[in-house]
Amino acid sequence: MAAPTSFSGEVWAELRLADARDVPHIYSLIHQMAEFELLTDLFAATHDLLHSTLFPTPQPAPFASFTALVLDLSPSPVSASADTIGSLRLDLSASPLADPEAAAFPSPRGAGRVTAGFVICFPNYSSFLAKPGLYVEDIFVRAPWRHRGLGRMMLSAVAGRAAEIGMGRVEWCVLDWNQNAIDFYEGMGAEVFTKWRICRLTGPALDKYKGAGSASQEEHHAGKAE
Amino acid sequence: MAAPTSFSGEVWAELRLADARDVPHIYSLIHQMAEFELLTDLFAATHDLLHSTLFPTPQPAPFASFTALVLDLSPSPVSASADTIGSLRLDLSASPLADPEAAAFPSPRGAGRVTAGFVICFPNYSSFLAKPGLYVEDIFVRAPWRHRGLGRMMLSAVAGRAAEIGMGRVEWCVLDWNQNAIDFYEGMGAEVFTKWRICRLTGPALDKYKGAGSASQEEHHAGKAE
Repeated sequence: MAAPTSFSGEVWAELRLADARDVPHIYSLIHQMAEFELLTDLFAATHDLLHSTLFPTPQPAPFASFTALVLDLSPSPVSASADTIGSLRLDLSASPLADPEAAAFPSPRGAGRVTAGFVICFPNYSSFLAKPGLYVEDIFVRAPWRHRGLGRMMLSAVAGRAAEIGMGRVEWCVLDWNQNAIDFYEGMGAEVFTKWRICRLTGPALDKYKGAGSASQEEHHAGKAE
Repeated sequence: MAAPTSFSGEVWAELRLADARDVPHIYSLIHQMAEFELLTDLFAATHDLLHSTLFPTPQPAPFASFTALVLDLSPSPVSASADTIGSLRLDLSASPLADPEAAAFPSPRGAGRVTAGFVICFPNYSSFLAKPGLYVEDIFVRAPWRHRGLGRMMLSAVAGRAAEIGMGRVEWCVLDWNQNAIDFYEGMGAEVFTKWRICRLTGPALDKYKGAGSASQEEHHAGKAE
């Protein structure tokens, strides 16, 4: 059953654990996200890198390391499986939804399902709590499927799973000019920290520290270090 | 050999991988950090929690999961071992250094060493790079040992190790009013991102999402979801 390009009536969304068969769609969705954020110059992902970093052998337990989830939309009801993290029934009877890209995003799970979004998250650590938390690196829905409660379902389901497995907090980032997103997150109960800034070393600025651990003592002998 | 409370002449600093014997000092140092940040109301760490979360059995490879490092100061030269991440020789011949707390921080490695700081870091993930990075959650030096290049050595050594094992970036946070720290990090080559804000769900605001994954479909049936 091929994926339709127009959806009407009832549609069933499932947020599920991804596996290696989802790599091509995850790649395409990350690229769409880079386009949306006008950051394609930073895009350096490949199928092979995604495969080896997100789906290593052996695969760690979900949420214990880098974890990829995929959002599938199905024209028929979906039975929850061990892979299901969240679900939502959409009622499109008032107006059908056109998804011109649907043919490019058939879910590897078949049955006419279409992949429409993804989440990448991983554990972080709070030393004050001495507990792991969950950091949500990406949460993305393709354009035709936005503003239908899917983002809320995805974040709620991920937060719920984190709470259920004993994690102390769930964190993610938002741009300070994106007031709609800030309002949405605050409405979900999140605190937005205004004082903290992220610092990053990358590229050549990072590479120059290669060997710094072994070099620092010698460097100080020569009187060059601070 | 007991730890001295005053240091003079040459002193050798070693940043090394921590093990379970370091838990009591790591606990005390996290508490000092909470005091320094006026955040003791958020402090909920215990020896048992630190032990089970930082030093699980089996212990993952360093930097592949939550990783604790300890800074030891030694009155005699330290030979680098497999646990050594960075080192620095300090010359205190111009003026001795008093460390009144030294007796409370004898290093479990003995030989008159004193524990004076710690780092907690863990891998994060960049989907644009499809690569792990390293997030530095904490980097802390006890007050008497500050402003002697130890923080720079610690961050340089950790960044160097991250670069050597193929991580794409190293990230951490700074408070926006801490211009000294911002200048220091920028001087080390870091970019400080001014537009991103951290969002956090924790405590009761997080707990209310327990069961959200399984509940969302039913909730929508009842017409309550967005």
